[in-house]
Amino acid sequence: MRIARYTPAAGGPASYGLVEGDGDDAVVVRLEGNPFDGVRTTEERTPLGQVRLLAPVEPSKVLCLGRNYAEHAKELGNEVPEIPVVFAKFSTSVVGPDAEVPYPPDTGNLHFEGELAVVIGQECTRVPADRVADVVLGYTVANDLTMRDMQRAEKQWTRAKGFDRSCPLGPWVETDVDPAALSLRTTVNGDVKQDGTTADMLLDVAACVSWVSQTMTLLPGDVVLTGTPAGVGPLQAGDEVTVTLEGIGSLSTRIV
Amino acid sequence: MRIARYTPAAGGPASYGLVEGDGDDAVVVRLEGNPFDGVRTTEERTPLGQVRLLAPVEPSKVLCLGRNYAEHAKELGNEVPEIPVVFAKFSTSVVGPDAEVPYPPDTGNLHFEGELAVVIGQECTRVPADRVADVVLGYTVANDLTMRDMQRAEKQWTRAKGFDRSCPLGPWVETDVDPAALSLRTTVNGDVKQDGTTADMLLDVAACVSWVSQTMTLLPGDVVLTGTPAGVGPLQAGDEVTVTLEGIGSLSTRIV
Repeated sequence: MRIARYTPAAGGPASYGLVEGDGDDAVVVRLEGNPFDGVRTTEERTPLGQVRLLAPVEPSKVLCLGRNYAEHAKELGNEVPEIPVVFAKFSTSVVGPDAEVPYPPDTGNLHFEGELAVVIGQECTRVPADRVADVVLGYTVANDLTMRDMQRAEKQWTRAKGFDRSCPLGPWVETDVDPAALSLRTTVNGDVKQDGTTADMLLDVAACVSWVSQTMTLLPGDVVLTGTPAGVGPLQAGDEVTVTLEGIGSLSTRIV
Repeated sequence: MRIARYTPAAGGPASYGLVEGDGDDAVVVRLEGNPFDGVRTTEERTPLGQVRLLAPVEPSKVLCLGRNYAEHAKELGNEVPEIPVVFAKFSTSVVGPDAEVPYPPDTGNLHFEGELAVVIGQECTRVPADRVADVVLGYTVANDLTMRDMQRAEKQWTRAKGFDRSCPLGPWVETDVDPAALSLRTTVNGDVKQDGTTADMLLDVAACVSWVSQTMTLLPGDVVLTGTPAGVGPLQAGDEVTVTLEGIGSLSTRIV
């Protein structure tokens, strides 16, 4: 299933829905309530082209693994961490597909980082790696926008990584995909910048979720970002950055 | 005004209320809705002793200043930071007055840090220091519980500072106090461990709120922790730790 959140294109209340079909024939089937207590479809079907997709969930927090691909750690001059690095983004960081993100005045070096995002489906704490599949609703695509100069200058990454609109998320939650070896590609204005695979993650999805849940309870809709492969780089106002994950979809963001 | 959040002692729905009077005569006057859109009292008055106080707000995020008192930075062997250090706690970190906090199995060195907490009253971004008073609802007391060994071991403090129940908050939001020079005292089982004053903060309240709001939108009920004075130290299971801020109140927490 592809679980989306959307409003009518002209605006209105947000709903969850299932995206069915592809291309011009794709429709959104509205769900009753939210998908965390079970997916209940209604009779309301709308062509995908007539809705506006939102971030597919509304996380209370986004917990992120840093330096979880060896080649990316190296490209920024960092060691592969002995202990996984965890930082956070906030509800105020999240935006949906095709969002506009203003180039922040606080940076001269805004970077994209394409990532696989894990969407949590139920409240959980201290989840053993072999039970993580039970608490995952599905997977979506994220862009971990980063003010690289501020990240380097400040000891903690809260401001450099957690700023407003720093977490584009979407286009939907894919529930039926094995995250172990998905191609991950990021383009800027069509030029390929990142061309990796989730098979290169140092901690796999199960290890990432298990790790962050050891000290923090995860709530339905919370999101775990699993790190970015090599190839990160700067964005400028006017750029369109697109992250594509095999078997999930593409997430585009425009820097304005 | 003292704005509290509470349930009946026997449990039930949470309400906001005003705490009026002191000692055995104190009562809670229930508010309509929440205090962020204006304080509207009802006729419902309950003796304070017959309610259970909750954390006075439900923050979407708690943003915290690190090393904001010079003597505390020194006691842990750290420099006073050239750029303020900002870390975060989460909705899942917050507990109320007289909460029990299980000693986390992830640490052998759980520390208390008594702090002045600023409660945000309205959505705001990039607040100039001289406008911060306009966005503050009031002040409460916090204990920034920290797994000190994990904090030292991990590059980012997200797990060591953001764990479940790591942010006792309360007993209420005091709206009529000048935060510039309040005595701050922390006791463990009655022994004084921290005896400082908010006058020693390197960044004052206005500067703290202005700084964290530069990259992140603050929402009504969000909380900014302003750092801890010297005297931090370890807690053990069975300890009762109490943080008292002059003109605001006392916040006790039991480690179990």
